[in-house]
Amino acid sequence: MTKNDTICAISTPPGVGGIAVARVSGPDARDVVQRIWRGRRAITSAQANTCLVGTVLDTCGEALDQAVATVFHAPHSFTGEDVVEVSVHGSRWVQQELVMSLLKAGARMAEAGEFSMRAFMSGRMDLTQAEAVADLIASTSRATQRLALRQMRGAFSDKIERLREELLELAALLELELDFSEEDVEFASRERLMELTAKVCDATARLADGFSAGRAIRDGVPVAIVGATNAGKSSILNALADDERAIVSDIHGTTRDVVEDLISIGDYTVRLKDTAGIRHTTDTIERLGIERSRRALQEAAVILLVIDASNSEAPVPWDDILSAMATSPHTRLVVAANKSDLVGEICNMDIPAERAEVVSTSALTGRGIDELRSTLSSAISAALGTDADSGVLVSNARHYQALREASAAAARVLEALQAGIPGDLVAQDLRECLAALGSITGAITTPEILSTIFSRFCIGK
Amino acid sequence: MTKNDTICAISTPPGVGGIAVARVSGPDARDVVQRIWRGRRAITSAQANTCLVGTVLDTCGEALDQAVATVFHAPHSFTGEDVVEVSVHGSRWVQQELVMSLLKAGARMAEAGEFSMRAFMSGRMDLTQAEAVADLIASTSRATQRLALRQMRGAFSDKIERLREELLELAALLELELDFSEEDVEFASRERLMELTAKVCDATARLADGFSAGRAIRDGVPVAIVGATNAGKSSILNALADDERAIVSDIHGTTRDVVEDLISIGDYTVRLKDTAGIRHTTDTIERLGIERSRRALQEAAVILLVIDASNSEAPVPWDDILSAMATSPHTRLVVAANKSDLVGEICNMDIPAERAEVVSTSALTGRGIDELRSTLSSAISAALGTDADSGVLVSNARHYQALREASAAAARVLEALQAGIPGDLVAQDLRECLAALGSITGAITTPEILSTIFSRFCIGK
Repeated sequence: MTKNDTICAISTPPGVGGIAVARVSGPDARDVVQRIWRGRRAITSAQANTCLVGTVLDTCGEALDQAVATVFHAPHSFTGEDVVEVSVHGSRWVQQELVMSLLKAGARMAEAGEFSMRAFMSGRMDLTQAEAVADLIASTSRATQRLALRQMRGAFSDKIERLREELLELAALLELELDFSEEDVEFASRERLMELTAKVCDATARLADGFSAGRAIRDGVPVAIVGATNAGKSSILNALADDERAIVSDIHGTTRDVVEDLISIGDYTVRLKDTAGIRHTTDTIERLGIERSRRALQEAAVILLVIDASNSEAPVPWDDILSAMATSPHTRLVVAANKSDLVGEICNMDIPAERAEVVSTSALTGRGIDELRSTLSSAISAALGTDADSGVLVSNARHYQALREASAAAARVLEALQAGIPGDLVAQDLRECLAALGSITGAITTPEILSTIFSRFCIGK
Repeated sequence: MTKNDTICAISTPPGVGGIAVARVSGPDARDVVQRIWRGRRAITSAQANTCLVGTVLDTCGEALDQAVATVFHAPHSFTGEDVVEVSVHGSRWVQQELVMSLLKAGARMAEAGEFSMRAFMSGRMDLTQAEAVADLIASTSRATQRLALRQMRGAFSDKIERLREELLELAALLELELDFSEEDVEFASRERLMELTAKVCDATARLADGFSAGRAIRDGVPVAIVGATNAGKSSILNALADDERAIVSDIHGTTRDVVEDLISIGDYTVRLKDTAGIRHTTDTIERLGIERSRRALQEAAVILLVIDASNSEAPVPWDDILSAMATSPHTRLVVAANKSDLVGEICNMDIPAERAEVVSTSALTGRGIDELRSTLSSAISAALGTDADSGVLVSNARHYQALREASAAAARVLEALQAGIPGDLVAQDLRECLAALGSITGAITTPEILSTIFSRFCIGK
């Protein structure tokens, strides 16, 4: 990706629609578009943030379509460069020919993520913000959208940059000591350095801790649906998913595999795992299913237990549930007392678990399903710790890795300082800590890292 | 479709992309967007044709995305109303929530084609132009795009309107005569009326004649590929289509059905019909295939005959080809002398048909395929009569029908005038002629006709 040429691509979704928009960015953006433009006013002399109506020409120099060109001047554009967005009718031919025409007029086809990369290169956004643009485009729920937007607006990178800048100042003083190592001076206050390193160590560790919640929101919150066979687990799953995804049957042990469904619950995308009925069996395949069910329970943010309210004799796998909840102290339990149509109102239930709520449901009549949805939504917020205003949540594996490295390096610095180890030995760990923090925002980066990150973007962004 | 409310829809293609655009149109467009807008400058006070950068809010009133809003003032917009186009990141969630938020802010979801219908209602375009927008959006080739764009720019409706206005003037005089029928006056010059009616009759008939070419361009130009079995017909088809679509085999009579492929040849989308090898057979299924082949030949704009240049003994179905070409005087013949790799250069071929060209090809090596493409493209232009600057070409069945009615009514008027039939008897046919012409541009129309036309559009246009 060279930097000083002019690139173009269709930025709207692929396919046919009312309108489609081609984005042109680079020093020659206005000249390039002017070459294929016929209109009362020239693109080249257009004021910033105005749009012109005219005709774009095809590769033969003949009229291709009536178009609206919106002109942005550097640095006040998405990329920070001169940008022209050309809006045409969203036909396959017109879109394809418009790009061909722009290429002929001197633009180059943009690579995947190249507009965002330019926005980063020109300092319009840092790396976490550019990455958030991709997350925002991929968002399919309110929770993922908010996570991405907060990151795009810089909440996360501000936090990281503040830590890094404070630390950088002290690190500079420490490096200065090394230049005067013969003289045994201390420019950097050891007390201040310890205090700050402890703060960095703690803050990065806490941010890293949020990753499991952030990842859950981004990839789908794991919810395990469990219960005795025939309690109506699959029917509840179907009622929540609003269409048929798992086999519903009256034969015991029908649902053998962990069936996974991506559904929306409140603001979240949920990865709903239907589990095999946990019970003792000699069937090998079924036993494998039960093993998978136990794992799904361990990994769940919320366990949805479906019991047959009309059959108090039906066994409930409390052992498995309580053991999973003991392992993961944030896991919540929601009990759907199903088949309530057969027994009327459920009065009192003896639930041996903390962090649990009971909803009376009937998958048959649909009663209680809405309440079940909202109870699940609150339970998810509580389990992920997103009910309190948690501020910044890390959802990107690259950031998580860097935070872990920064935290570990900071812990080593702290330990060395506490042991009174000389500055030159501390400096190396401090540098590593700073490098890890800098890699998050892109303050420190390499072309390889950049192209790895941006090549995952779509073309046109 | 009421007229005075404010409508909104996503106008870019459905799906995920860098950006997506919601269009808001109506008297409250700016107020509606302002209600979900946070930015340094207000939408409500924005100048025409300028864009603002800000944040759009979701249905909870929280930040949904950073956005660019482009403001158009009535009547200088696509619909002729106040319009705001809101450009956001092209995520599924953001697009869906943006529309929900606009609805909550007072807009109504646009019906299919409602933006175009409003453009028609406000006089920004006539009916043929609005229909051309839909054709342009559906265009998949240079030929369909040019056809639609020419119509969108008004070339067709100008022609119709000019005829209608001239005729209208004389018709008014004729109607005036009827008011003075007792007095036996002639306000409308019979000579001038005959002259003009003859002109209308001729012009509408000629426009209607162009429909088969227009329809061919719009729906795909019919090209029949024919030849003896084993001459390499299917291989040529595949070479032209650039991937495998028909079964290629060495067994005689493999291609039994008329296989149809939509492929691009030059500026055209071509409906390439592979036919069963025409030969005498007793096999019933194969005989049906041969019947279909004969029909495909009759309907073809261009017949592509594939012969085996390495086997001069191979039979060529000249009878079928020549009879088809005799029936359709515009049909062209292109002969692919295939398997040229086996015989070197083809020197001279005895082609018993007029309007024919020979190209030496090898489907095996790919030699001659590009030349075959360009020869086919020229043959199509010649067959459709689009090589000369044919001006306006009718491609819409509704227009064709109305032109036929106008032409027939004009012929009746002419006949009556020539027979010296009194004005009141002529007037009725003249009115029918005018109504047919007026229905094309929408000068005369009904809400039913309009909603039939616009409901075929996509949402957002």
